[in-house]
Amino acid sequence: MPSLTEVAKKAGVSIATASLVLNSGRRTRRVGEACAARVRQVAEQLGYVPNYHAQSMKRGRADVIAVALDVDYSGAKLKRNELGATYYGTIVGAIEASARSHGNLMAIVGPQEDLRAPDRGLLGIRQRRFDGMIVLGPAVHREHTDFLAQPHAEPIVVIEYAAKTDLPVVDWDEPGSVKLAVRHLAELGHKDLLWLGPRDEHTHAPAPRREELFRRHVRDAGLRGQSCCFERIQGSADYLADLADAAEGALAERLKNGPRVFTGVVCYNDVTAIGACGALMAAGLRIPDDVSVIGFDDVEAPLAIPRLTTVSHRLDEMGRRATELVLQWVEDPAAVERLRGRRVLLEPELVVRKSTGKCKGRG
Amino acid sequence: MPSLTEVAKKAGVSIATASLVLNSGRRTRRVGEACAARVRQVAEQLGYVPNYHAQSMKRGRADVIAVALDVDYSGAKLKRNELGATYYGTIVGAIEASARSHGNLMAIVGPQEDLRAPDRGLLGIRQRRFDGMIVLGPAVHREHTDFLAQPHAEPIVVIEYAAKTDLPVVDWDEPGSVKLAVRHLAELGHKDLLWLGPRDEHTHAPAPRREELFRRHVRDAGLRGQSCCFERIQGSADYLADLADAAEGALAERLKNGPRVFTGVVCYNDVTAIGACGALMAAGLRIPDDVSVIGFDDVEAPLAIPRLTTVSHRLDEMGRRATELVLQWVEDPAAVERLRGRRVLLEPELVVRKSTGKCKGRG
Repeated sequence: MPSLTEVAKKAGVSIATASLVLNSGRRTRRVGEACAARVRQVAEQLGYVPNYHAQSMKRGRADVIAVALDVDYSGAKLKRNELGATYYGTIVGAIEASARSHGNLMAIVGPQEDLRAPDRGLLGIRQRRFDGMIVLGPAVHREHTDFLAQPHAEPIVVIEYAAKTDLPVVDWDEPGSVKLAVRHLAELGHKDLLWLGPRDEHTHAPAPRREELFRRHVRDAGLRGQSCCFERIQGSADYLADLADAAEGALAERLKNGPRVFTGVVCYNDVTAIGACGALMAAGLRIPDDVSVIGFDDVEAPLAIPRLTTVSHRLDEMGRRATELVLQWVEDPAAVERLRGRRVLLEPELVVRKSTGKCKGRG
Repeated sequence: MPSLTEVAKKAGVSIATASLVLNSGRRTRRVGEACAARVRQVAEQLGYVPNYHAQSMKRGRADVIAVALDVDYSGAKLKRNELGATYYGTIVGAIEASARSHGNLMAIVGPQEDLRAPDRGLLGIRQRRFDGMIVLGPAVHREHTDFLAQPHAEPIVVIEYAAKTDLPVVDWDEPGSVKLAVRHLAELGHKDLLWLGPRDEHTHAPAPRREELFRRHVRDAGLRGQSCCFERIQGSADYLADLADAAEGALAERLKNGPRVFTGVVCYNDVTAIGACGALMAAGLRIPDDVSVIGFDDVEAPLAIPRLTTVSHRLDEMGRRATELVLQWVEDPAAVERLRGRRVLLEPELVVRKSTGKCKGRG
């Protein structure tokens, strides 16, 4: 490929002038129109491809948004990698599509050596490698929340995060979401509900545990609720399969040990709901004829047996909104004033499939 | 943040010298040791952060590997984005982790306007934005294989691709994989097998259809095989859920229309196997007591009900190997000689879970 020097020489201008015309990405008054046209013509004749880095330095923009992905609940080497979890994959895919539609590239930043992913992303912004960063809140370990608690001048947006931060956050309305699930079952005539979820919800305080929200909304709706909480399996290679297994084991145990009083199960998420379905089916119960099951996420739900009714977090929309916010901030640094402390709350969406139905009594 | 100019001024050297010391990333003979040490000391005192683009230009490396992801089977706007499909998410996650462990960043390149993703990635390499690219073969539409059929001088590695290309390919042994599935069922005593899969397998010629491989291996093993092929549902928002639904519908129809002669079902992939399980369970058949079910991928298998026996493509390993190959090529352009036309074939792996068991007859 021809160099900028060759283009400049053939066009009869200095390298600085050729660079100004070809790399700044906009018309400049410092070079005459005729001269600029000649440089562009020569560049095209020679098949010159502008150097991205030279352009970025002239323009002060990398056109890259970093996504900090830092999941490692177990400390063990995960067999299921972060992007292989549909939950993260869906958000990241939405960020990529949105960044692309705005002419930007998305890069994934993970942890390395002593640095957590958000620290590496921030370093990248300071190095002008990235223009901004999106941090996935659920991927921030509870012991590493310092980064988000500190003030930052750089364009950083957080997705799904309840703990202290001045950065703009795009989140979903979790209490509203639990209310939606309980109301759906109430409308189908269910009066006795069971909560099935892990004891450790990986919540960032001050968010209430989802189980507490369940108990509150069950009470408010005049229903009866019980909880079946279980321990997570630790240090496993596939934390999703293990969550489903733990949920299945806990519900199977409960079904074995006493009479069943519930006709609806509200599950911590889709994966927990898959575990619930496994236990119910193994006990000879039909879904939804004997028991209705609902989860949260709308991630694994469309591929479960039966297809799960669930409350969607609208992960796509969260990724899109976060990308738009961070790009607004990149375009206009003054936007920081209206973005600081801002929380964008998305309305959850009930997705009815085949795991919930009218209450037909306890059978 | 202090600029390079300020560092140079305070250290009493020219900007060019300061840049050489701070941006080239290696020791240079053109600057004396004492002088270089002084520049570094001043930079640290002032809190100078080197500019990534300046460093990249000096070093001739971006330290970025692009992944071209170009799925759009339907032409419609997909509700399920590419990374939300665990299949792609897992490969991409493995590439990211591997690139990171080698000090590189991974960026996702999608299609934009008239350019397909691989074309955009190639442009990025020419612009020095990326050092190399990995193209996901299954994400290359059959009408857009020209790119891979042409010769390329740039470091590009392809994952899972059977059609014509001189580029190095990391693939799995598909015939061996189908053989493994058939042999597993044969060893469990099954003699009558059913193939369940879409009529259109999205295969890149000259790869044989997976169904043909099934028929060949069933014959070779002295078993009896039938096929149940179905039409895909087109233009849908969630192509995975639709594949499961189409599979379920096709098998349900077959079970309704005649006596069941098979005791084992070999499914096109995990998603198809989920559809198979749905149809079998709805017909009152127990898995694996009445019918064994096996799929391919090991993607959705760990979260299905029942947990699916499957043949793993080892997506993680494919991502890792492709990353290593492309980085070898980036490090040493002469490597192109031994990489051209190379095919790395990974051995498939049988993962036995709960959907296959000993044949107990046709019940």
